[in-house]
Amino acid sequence: MAPRPSALLPALRAVRPQRLPVSPRLIRNSTPARVQNFASLRLFTTSTGRRAVDSSADAKNIKLTSDSYPELRRDSSFAQLTENHVAHFKKLLGNAGVIDGVTTDATSDIQPFNEDWMRKYRGESRLVLKPASTKEVSEVLKYCNEQKLAVVPQGGNTGLVGGSVPVFDEIIINMSRMNTIRSFDEVSGTLVVDAGVILEVADQYLAERGYIFPLDLGAKGSCQIGGNVATNAGGLRLLRYGSLHGNVLGLEAVLPDGTVVEDLCTLRKNNTGYDLKQLFIGAEGTLGIITKVSVICPQRSSAVNVAFFGLESFDKVQQAFRAAKGQLSEILSAFELMDSTSQELVHAVRQGQKPLEGDHPFYCLIETSGSNSDHDYEKLESFLEDVMSKEIVSDGVLAQDSTQAKSLWSWREGIPECLGHWGGTYKYDVSIPLNDLYRLVEETQERMENAGLVGSDDTYPVVGVVGYGHMGDSNLHLNVAVRRYDPRIEQILEPFVYEWIQSRNGSISAEHGLGLAKKNFIGYSRSDTMVRLMKDIKNLYDPNGIMNPYKYI
Amino acid sequence: MAPRPSALLPALRAVRPQRLPVSPRLIRNSTPARVQNFASLRLFTTSTGRRAVDSSADAKNIKLTSDSYPELRRDSSFAQLTENHVAHFKKLLGNAGVIDGVTTDATSDIQPFNEDWMRKYRGESRLVLKPASTKEVSEVLKYCNEQKLAVVPQGGNTGLVGGSVPVFDEIIINMSRMNTIRSFDEVSGTLVVDAGVILEVADQYLAERGYIFPLDLGAKGSCQIGGNVATNAGGLRLLRYGSLHGNVLGLEAVLPDGTVVEDLCTLRKNNTGYDLKQLFIGAEGTLGIITKVSVICPQRSSAVNVAFFGLESFDKVQQAFRAAKGQLSEILSAFELMDSTSQELVHAVRQGQKPLEGDHPFYCLIETSGSNSDHDYEKLESFLEDVMSKEIVSDGVLAQDSTQAKSLWSWREGIPECLGHWGGTYKYDVSIPLNDLYRLVEETQERMENAGLVGSDDTYPVVGVVGYGHMGDSNLHLNVAVRRYDPRIEQILEPFVYEWIQSRNGSISAEHGLGLAKKNFIGYSRSDTMVRLMKDIKNLYDPNGIMNPYKYI
Repeated sequence: MAPRPSALLPALRAVRPQRLPVSPRLIRNSTPARVQNFASLRLFTTSTGRRAVDSSADAKNIKLTSDSYPELRRDSSFAQLTENHVAHFKKLLGNAGVIDGVTTDATSDIQPFNEDWMRKYRGESRLVLKPASTKEVSEVLKYCNEQKLAVVPQGGNTGLVGGSVPVFDEIIINMSRMNTIRSFDEVSGTLVVDAGVILEVADQYLAERGYIFPLDLGAKGSCQIGGNVATNAGGLRLLRYGSLHGNVLGLEAVLPDGTVVEDLCTLRKNNTGYDLKQLFIGAEGTLGIITKVSVICPQRSSAVNVAFFGLESFDKVQQAFRAAKGQLSEILSAFELMDSTSQELVHAVRQGQKPLEGDHPFYCLIETSGSNSDHDYEKLESFLEDVMSKEIVSDGVLAQDSTQAKSLWSWREGIPECLGHWGGTYKYDVSIPLNDLYRLVEETQERMENAGLVGSDDTYPVVGVVGYGHMGDSNLHLNVAVRRYDPRIEQILEPFVYEWIQSRNGSISAEHGLGLAKKNFIGYSRSDTMVRLMKDIKNLYDPNGIMNPYKYI
Repeated sequence: MAPRPSALLPALRAVRPQRLPVSPRLIRNSTPARVQNFASLRLFTTSTGRRAVDSSADAKNIKLTSDSYPELRRDSSFAQLTENHVAHFKKLLGNAGVIDGVTTDATSDIQPFNEDWMRKYRGESRLVLKPASTKEVSEVLKYCNEQKLAVVPQGGNTGLVGGSVPVFDEIIINMSRMNTIRSFDEVSGTLVVDAGVILEVADQYLAERGYIFPLDLGAKGSCQIGGNVATNAGGLRLLRYGSLHGNVLGLEAVLPDGTVVEDLCTLRKNNTGYDLKQLFIGAEGTLGIITKVSVICPQRSSAVNVAFFGLESFDKVQQAFRAAKGQLSEILSAFELMDSTSQELVHAVRQGQKPLEGDHPFYCLIETSGSNSDHDYEKLESFLEDVMSKEIVSDGVLAQDSTQAKSLWSWREGIPECLGHWGGTYKYDVSIPLNDLYRLVEETQERMENAGLVGSDDTYPVVGVVGYGHMGDSNLHLNVAVRRYDPRIEQILEPFVYEWIQSRNGSISAEHGLGLAKKNFIGYSRSDTMVRLMKDIKNLYDPNGIMNPYKYI
C-alpha cells in the first residue's frame, strides 16, 4: 500500500508511525526457521492431566507420549520392525529414503521426527521413510499393510494436536522429499503440487505470477501443503477465500493397500460421481497418504489496508462485523477480534505505544484486499465514518503504509507469544455461533475468579483469561495465561469448556483437528452415529488400522 | 443499477436502449412455472441411440425409459409393491403423504412424477410418497430397505440426466412437503432449510435480509435445495462464490437403513473428523436422502454492471479473461463465452438489433457485482479501456441500466431456447482445460462439415455447431442445433466427444451429473480405480442397492 498524504477522518487519530512498536518477531513474516523459535515457548496441553514439559526441561526431557497417556497400549496386532523389513525398505527407497534406527543407532537423527514442535508429544519410532514418488509411497504402504506395520504420515510436523508424530514405534513416513511444484495454469489459476511442497514456497511461486495461495497460517514457512490438506487447515484467508473443501480441486492419495486414488482433477467443475477426495481433507492421515494436490488460486490483491479500533461491548463488535460485511463486502479479507485482557498482556510484555490511546473492552482488526487502492481506502474510510457516527466503534486508526499495517497486525498476531511470557498457556481453538462466542471467555473468567485463582502477583497461578480469534469465521481462541501448572485450573477448564461448547452446538476444534490431544473429546462435537459412520469409512479404507493409529479414530 | 448519464468510453458505442431487443422470455427472471414452458422445447439426448420424442409427440407419448434402454432389466432382488406395503406407508405418512397407484387408479396423478421435464425419460412407478419430516423419511427408508423396495428420491425434478425419475417401478420419494426455512443468522449469514425448499424461495427470503444464495441457475423457480445439493449444482454464481462443497456447511441425510446422518453444522470451521456430508453432495440420491441443508450465504451486492464485447479469436478471449480476473478481481461475478454461430442463430430466431454492430468470431459477457456502484463502474470502464487499447477486445458495450443489462444477458441466456427452433439440440455440458476449451467445437464442426451434414437449407440435418458457456469455470456447452434426428450425426458425436474430453483430462459432466443419461460414460472421466472406490462407498451405505438404482452407480 502506498503512503497516503491525506488526512484521516476527523474522528480518527492519525497513526504515529515512529511511536507504534513494531514487534521484534512478527508472526506474519515467517521464515522457514521461524516455527522452531517457538520451541522455547512453553504450552500446557488442553487435556486434563496432560502437561507439557515444565520450564526447566531441556530438549531431551520431553515426556514420552506413552508415559503421558498410560492408558494407551501398543496394539499387539502390529508387527515389530525387523532387519528384514528395513532391508526391504532400503531396496525400495534407497539409502536416501531411509533413516534407520533399527539396525544402527540413529536416535538423534530420528529425534526431530519423533517430537512435535510444541514439545508435548514424543514417540519412539526407530524408522523414518522418505519416499520420493507416489509409486514409492504406494509400495511402502502396500508392504506395511501386508506386514502389519503401523505408520504415521508426517508433513511439516507443525500441528498442535500431536497428529503427525508416532505414539509408540510407528514408522514415520515423511513427505519432505516430494516437494516439486508440478504445474500452474496462469489463466485458470490452478496449481498442482506434490504433498511435501512448503506452503510459503508455493505462495512465493504464486506471488511471482500475480496469484495467491488461498490459505495462510503462522507456520507457513514450515508446514507442507499435503499436511495442510490432511488437517483441513483454516487460517487467515478463510473468511475471504473459503475452506480447502472448496479450493482443493483434486488430489492424489495412496490407500494402505497401495491403491492410488487418482483424483487429481484440475477443473473447477467435475460432476461425475462421489467426491471421494473430500474424505482425505481433514482425515489427518488416518485413511491414506496424500501425495499430490490441485488447488484453485485467486489473483493476488494489489491493495491491502488495515484498520484497528476499540469497541465498548461484544454486541457492538457484532454490529461492526455486520456493517463490515455489508459495506466492505467483496474486499473484506480479515475481521479479527481481541479482548482487553489480551491487549493488556501484549502491552505488559512489549511495553511501548498502544495503537489506541484509551482502553476499550474489545478491539477489532479489519483488513481489506482489493484490486484498486483508492477504491478500497475510500470504502474503508466510509465504513469507519459510518460505524463511528453510529457509535458502534469508539475509536480507531487506519494504517498509512505497510509498516503501520504490520504494526497493527502485531497486536493481534503477537498474542500467543506474549501469553506464554509468564509461564504457559492453556489453549482452546473452538468454534461457537457468533452470538455466544465471547460468553465462553466471560464464564471461564468468572469461574477462575470465583475459585480465587486469578491475580496480579505470583501467589495466583492464573495471569488472565483471554479471548481472541477469527471473528469472521466464528473461531475463538480461548487462552488462559498462567504462571505455573495447577490441577485446580484444569479442573475448572475441563470438562466445562467442552460441555459449554457442546450445549451451543459449537466445535471443539475449529482449525487444529483432533489428533491425539482431542482423541477423547470428539463426542462433544460429534454424535455417536457420526463417530460410528466415520469408523465405517476407516474400516473400509484401512481394515488393518495401520494408518496413524491411536489417534482420534 | 441506477441509470447513468455519463458518456461511455470513446471507443465504445453507447447502447441503444430502444433498439436492443428484449427477450420475450428471459431465462434469468424465472418464475416457479417457468420450467414447465420448456416442456415444449424438444431436446435430443446426448447418448447415441437415445432419442427424445419427436416433434409431433404429445404428453402421453413419452417413450418409456425401459423401452429406450432395452438392456436395462428390473432387478429381481427388489420386491413387488403390495397392498400391505401401501397400507403400511399410509399408516406412516397419512393419506396426505401417499399418492397410491397400487390399490387405486392414480396414473394421471402419478404421471408428472414419473416423467422428467425434458420429456426424455418415463418411469412406471405406481407409488409416490411425500414425507413431511426427517423422522418420516427415516421410517420410510428403513421399511423399504427391510422390504427390499427400491426408491428414487425426487426434488424439483428439473435435472437434465434422468436422475430424479424412476426407470421401472421404484417408489418415488418426493421431498416437496419438507419446505420450511428453519433459521437464518443475520450476522454470520448461515441459512438452514429443509431439503424441499425451492431455491428461488430461499433466495427471495435472503434478498429481503440483504443476503444472496451462493447458487443460481435457470431452474431456480422449480428446483429444490436438497436436489441442488444432491446433484452438486454449479450454475451462474460459482465463479464468484465457489462450489457447494465449500458453501454447504452441514446437512442432515437419511441412509437406507433409517440412520439419520446428523451433520447439520452451522459453523464455518469444524475440524472434527471426516467430512462425511461431502459424500452426499453430488451423490445424486444413490447413498441416502438429504433432508436438511445448512449454507453459508454472502451479502447481496448492491451494484451490478454488465458489459458485452466482441473478440477476434479464442486466444483473445483468454487474454480478456486473464485481464478481467486481474483488474476486476473481487467484483467479477460472470465471464460468459458465446461463439459467432450461437449469436447468429439467436439473431435468426429473434431478429432485431444485435448488441454490437459488426460480426465477431467470439463474444463475451462480463458481469460485476460489488458494494459500490461508482467504484465498480470505474473499474469496468478502466478494464474495457485497457483491453480495447491493447486490441484484445474489438468492440464492446456497457449496459446503462438494469433493462439493458437484462437485454445483454438475454443474448447469452437465450441460446438454449433459440437453438431448439429448428427441431432439436444435441447437448453436451463438459469441462475442458481453458487452453483447449473451444477446440472441441471447431473439431466437431469440421467433422460435421466433412460429412456434408451442415447447411443452410432443409436438405442438411445440422443447422450449426455451437459453443458457449461459463468461461470462468472452464465449462463449455457444446450444442448441435439440428433440423431432425439423424443417426449419422450421433455417429460423428459419439464416442468422439467423450474420447476427446478424456484425452484432455476434462470432465464429461461439468454441472448436470451422470444420472441415467451418462451412466455408461463415467469411464471417460473416472478411472476404473475411482469407479471401484465409489462402488465400495455405495455398498457400505446401501448394501441392498435400493437407493436410486439403474443410475450411474
